[in-house]
Amino acid sequence: MQIIGEKINGTRKRVAQAIAERDADFIKSLALRQVEAGSAWLDVNAGTPPDREPDDLVWLIETIQPVIDIPLCLDSANLKALQTAVEVVDKTPLINSISGEPERLKGVLPLIAKHDCQVIALAMDEKKIPETSERRLEIIGRVLAETRAAGVPDEHVYCDPLALTLATNADSAVVAFQTMHAIKKHFPAVHLTIGLSNISFGLPARKYVNRTFLTLAMQAGLDSAILDPLDRDMQAAILATELVLGRDEHCLNYVRASRAGAFDEKGQKA
Amino acid sequence: MQIIGEKINGTRKRVAQAIAERDADFIKSLALRQVEAGSAWLDVNAGTPPDREPDDLVWLIETIQPVIDIPLCLDSANLKALQTAVEVVDKTPLINSISGEPERLKGVLPLIAKHDCQVIALAMDEKKIPETSERRLEIIGRVLAETRAAGVPDEHVYCDPLALTLATNADSAVVAFQTMHAIKKHFPAVHLTIGLSNISFGLPARKYVNRTFLTLAMQAGLDSAILDPLDRDMQAAILATELVLGRDEHCLNYVRASRAGAFDEKGQKA
Repeated sequence: MQIIGEKINGTRKRVAQAIAERDADFIKSLALRQVEAGSAWLDVNAGTPPDREPDDLVWLIETIQPVIDIPLCLDSANLKALQTAVEVVDKTPLINSISGEPERLKGVLPLIAKHDCQVIALAMDEKKIPETSERRLEIIGRVLAETRAAGVPDEHVYCDPLALTLATNADSAVVAFQTMHAIKKHFPAVHLTIGLSNISFGLPARKYVNRTFLTLAMQAGLDSAILDPLDRDMQAAILATELVLGRDEHCLNYVRASRAGAFDEKGQKA
Repeated sequence: MQIIGEKINGTRKRVAQAIAERDADFIKSLALRQVEAGSAWLDVNAGTPPDREPDDLVWLIETIQPVIDIPLCLDSANLKALQTAVEVVDKTPLINSISGEPERLKGVLPLIAKHDCQVIALAMDEKKIPETSERRLEIIGRVLAETRAAGVPDEHVYCDPLALTLATNADSAVVAFQTMHAIKKHFPAVHLTIGLSNISFGLPARKYVNRTFLTLAMQAGLDSAILDPLDRDMQAAILATELVLGRDEHCLNYVRASRAGAFDEKGQKA
């Protein structure tokens, strides 16, 4: 499981403040802690109005880059911000995101192809998220036709089946799992990713829902996720799921993580 | 998910002491708490030497029965103890267990058929547990040929695919899931159950392994399990898994359990 660390996001109040005040220490520390927690990418979302976003995104990138050794995930709906950001990154970034929306594809795909980026592809269409896995697969099929035509290899595409909250649709997780199975069946080379926390929006005791959804999604083939890498409970769920699914030979990672204090002490008792 | 409450087991020191001292209050309280936590059956295992086991089992049953309103799961390898116990139970019990062992089947099956009991069938043979799901399915097939011949309907059989510890075999959970899928495919009317805690024997941070295994086993069709119903973490995993798998309409059980304090407060934050 590859983690896309989600914490540097300007829609979060404390991060917005740090961006406004150019508080580099806060941002650097948030970046470092996520890297130390095992992130494969750091998501960077300025979350500021379109006219300020390019500058803010560049400031974030130039603040973070000197202290980390992993690539960034550039998270923006703003083509200009992405174009500016791609020019200042040290490592080839993951782009978050494209969808079946033609305008968006037309704008972002050339950038992705030119810089050989990886990209997250959402199973939605002009802001509409289909209810069934068949329709979501259809959209992913259309997006992949476009990425292939642009010269982006399937291995660079991270498909997000989309998880709506269970609070309004009891089948929402099941549809996400079905979509994952369908995508992997039809497009075996692509990756699967997901923005994890939507699934529990509006529900109480969200962490139990999130970690359970993650476990079942990993079984369905999820190989990366946008989540909070500083959430010990989530990290414990990933380690335990890899162990149970037979992906942790001789239990080495699990036992090592336990010795390093990754689990709550209460966990030591069965 | 139907829970078989596991706590009244004489192989546990405190329970052994209560049995030896005929401490009815302790046993009654342990029974009541498990019922209040939502058990569908209470497992009763005297765990004493064969000559004492019938008396001890009858004492346990007669102590527990007046204070509970659910059936018992009679857990004994001792035919005489089972024969004696079946005569004193108020409600038709679940018998724990039979396997592919011919001697055991010959002894216990007539009892099960005569009293219309439900029964747990282990996917093992004369104390040997096959490594592959194919061989485990084969054993379950042989056991079901015998239960059918004895007049026991498939719906009364709870098949346990067996979970060996991941500490010695990284594929142990995966083999259990494969066995579950195979059993449900070939024998759709039977139930699936499991003794949960074996999976993490010898590992650190066992609760994370147990709850993750439970989540994935429920996805594979598990509809009951022998576990500690007083373990809040396990109950939270069951509630969250039923929610995520779309088996909790309008999230009613989950939200209700949250209001009743079923989750750790920490869980309220996503």
